[in-house]
Amino acid sequence: MMDVADLVERARRGHPRAVARLISLVEDASPELREVMAALAPHTGRARVIGLTGSPGVGKSTTTAMLVRALRGQGRRVGVLAVDPSSPFTGGALLGDRVRMQDHATDDGVFIRSMASRGHLGGLAWATPQALRVLDAAGCEVILVETVGVGQAEVDIAGLADTTLVLVAPGMGDSIQAAKAGILEIADVFVVNKADREGAQSTVRDLRNMVALATRDWKPAIVPTVAARNEGADDLVQALDKHQAWLEESGELQRRRLARVRDEIEAIALTSLRVDLRDDGRLDTLADRVLAGSLDPYTAADELLA
Amino acid sequence: MMDVADLVERARRGHPRAVARLISLVEDASPELREVMAALAPHTGRARVIGLTGSPGVGKSTTTAMLVRALRGQGRRVGVLAVDPSSPFTGGALLGDRVRMQDHATDDGVFIRSMASRGHLGGLAWATPQALRVLDAAGCEVILVETVGVGQAEVDIAGLADTTLVLVAPGMGDSIQAAKAGILEIADVFVVNKADREGAQSTVRDLRNMVALATRDWKPAIVPTVAARNEGADDLVQALDKHQAWLEESGELQRRRLARVRDEIEAIALTSLRVDLRDDGRLDTLADRVLAGSLDPYTAADELLA
Repeated sequence: MMDVADLVERARRGHPRAVARLISLVEDASPELREVMAALAPHTGRARVIGLTGSPGVGKSTTTAMLVRALRGQGRRVGVLAVDPSSPFTGGALLGDRVRMQDHATDDGVFIRSMASRGHLGGLAWATPQALRVLDAAGCEVILVETVGVGQAEVDIAGLADTTLVLVAPGMGDSIQAAKAGILEIADVFVVNKADREGAQSTVRDLRNMVALATRDWKPAIVPTVAARNEGADDLVQALDKHQAWLEESGELQRRRLARVRDEIEAIALTSLRVDLRDDGRLDTLADRVLAGSLDPYTAADELLA
Repeated sequence: MMDVADLVERARRGHPRAVARLISLVEDASPELREVMAALAPHTGRARVIGLTGSPGVGKSTTTAMLVRALRGQGRRVGVLAVDPSSPFTGGALLGDRVRMQDHATDDGVFIRSMASRGHLGGLAWATPQALRVLDAAGCEVILVETVGVGQAEVDIAGLADTTLVLVAPGMGDSIQAAKAGILEIADVFVVNKADREGAQSTVRDLRNMVALATRDWKPAIVPTVAARNEGADDLVQALDKHQAWLEESGELQRRRLARVRDEIEAIALTSLRVDLRDDGRLDTLADRVLAGSLDPYTAADELLA
């Protein structure tokens, strides 16, 4: 029998194994989560959530590692959540990430965790906010959420984060051009990593031109970095702090967090409904009839919900 | 006032503009869809659905175009649905696809359509099966569904298709290695495209070794192609037909299609529930309380569903 109250209390005091255990409960969609979340609720709401995203190869994990060093240097407690959307084509990269993050493994001011939710009904839309809640209650002042790529509905990093960093690298300009609209909507800070490479200046220029056309209230900052050599860390932390200040002054922080909690409640409610629907024996009978062409899928859905 | 019955009848007789109009209704989540799907239901269930997926740059649209030519050469009516998961990073590629497919634009035995569903609540999990239903009722004997990348929960190509083609290209061996498990689960046929390039043989060998280890009943075929020069088309069509024959003999076809219809009914039901939840004024009040730490998200979800 698991002592949830004790586990939660130890996680709250920052014991790494208790924190890891609670995130595993989230990953496994454990029935104990209900009790865990009830116990954590009064201790949440303090962490700042920063999302990092970008195409494979731009240096997301190196940049994450650089940010962890910079934030630890300021004495802030940091959480890192590497979110794996369970893509067969990206699974390998994350394994690499895990290894590269090992230099912080012995620093007890840093929690590092990668998380997958392959197969779980609610997916990462369900799991990620709850994992953030665990790290938040464990006293992380900043949580970095690293995702592979952007734009997937289930792992909408912009919906989860207070501040979204979009990483690009020189020589990947085509995708920047192609993606103008999409990127501009979600990026709060652009990081041009590998800025010592040829083409870095023109990448920065392209981004400046894009940002100049944006109609959002916040004009995304553009920060060149060479994360592998720790160059640009201070500028990046400054850009993040500036965005944080704007979030607070403009009321946008409250708006984003409210939207995040709405999504979280909705994901839990929908997952619970979905489990009920899947377990409903009528679904098979209805599917048989639709497959035979004697029923349309809308009427079938109505009958399922009736 | 739209005459749905007339539109459906014209689509059934294969009028391209009527087919296009019906797919637009799906894309827009139009309220008329209920009536449309009811009218289409008796005319569906004949089309064979073939999914094509693979990393950017492997030649998905060239391969799709090659397959369209080969299938048209056999006199089969073909539908092509290019599914855009609305990723800011992939939006651009599809534009290119559309252009490249134009050589079939005047052939009335081919319907070509790209589809996005950015912003719609149910997303592509909701829209894609309904678009397939339209093409099926319009008499397409084969429907090719092309997606960017694999593994995204919302666009689970393997869940939609009778046969899933996974495209790889020489020199992208790292991702194959990294992704072994995931790819093997979903690939029914591997296409090694750009097989005239250096490294093609070792890519084929790597895949053979992977396939040899697989425990599935169906051992995926491996077909080298140079789609840009139309090389390998006959072998590919043969591999597809062989898989189709296996699907029918083994009973797997029925199993896959039943699972697909279950998912379709569920997606429609969940989307309808989701709309109700979003419109529920209590969600804001509950989110306020969770944000303040006075309520946990599970209890909030319970209250929302109560």
